[in-house]
Amino acid sequence: MRIPILKLRDNLLISIQWELDDQTALQFQEDLLQKIHQTNASGVVIDITSIDFIDSFIAKVLGDVIEMSKLMGAKVVITGIQPAVAITLLELGIRLEDVMTALDLENGLDKLEQELED
Amino acid sequence: MRIPILKLRDNLLISIQWELDDQTALQFQEDLLQKIHQTNASGVVIDITSIDFIDSFIAKVLGDVIEMSKLMGAKVVITGIQPAVAITLLELGIRLEDVMTALDLENGLDKLEQELED
Repeated sequence: MRIPILKLRDNLLISIQWELDDQTALQFQEDLLQKIHQTNASGVVIDITSIDFIDSFIAKVLGDVIEMSKLMGAKVVITGIQPAVAITLLELGIRLEDVMTALDLENGLDKLEQELED
Repeated sequence: MRIPILKLRDNLLISIQWELDDQTALQFQEDLLQKIHQTNASGVVIDITSIDFIDSFIAKVLGDVIEMSKLMGAKVVITGIQPAVAITLLELGIRLEDVMTALDLENGLDKLEQELED
């Protein structure tokens, strides 16, 4: 099964609620980029509140999908990063410096909207 | 894999993007009721735009989940019902009379918000 991508106005919402296997992660990457292209989305919120552990492969895919989305002109907000996930990302050198983060989906959407108004 | 349920303010959003097998449908029913209970959600939007065919079992589960959500005090909006799905629902006597419907996720959310303001 693939991860559903919801379109809400100009933004895409994704909630990853179960640990990803490698195949699902790669499929998600492909689907998201495709959807950004189709919908002309200006923002993407990826909520990973339910993920309390990621391995290096998934972390890399996540890092890549953020970079790629930015290349395609969509702002990305990652919400709900758990402590262990934050540590893994940092240890693996996945840079989320230019990525907005927020506590949860609501805050993530608000942040995107603020950003787009500026 | 289970169907992710997104919480946005007082509402839950679900987008069913691939055909459900029986097990996934039942799991979804359980997860949604659980989530309504946990989050005290006042509204639920279920988007089925990507579903162009449902069998009688899935139609029944969908009908049930709507009834159950209402019993728990949440308003339900179904969005993106395709022609063939509408026909199946009617033919099976699944009553969606008291259920709000809308074209897409945005419209569904707007409808819920209007309804809650009244």
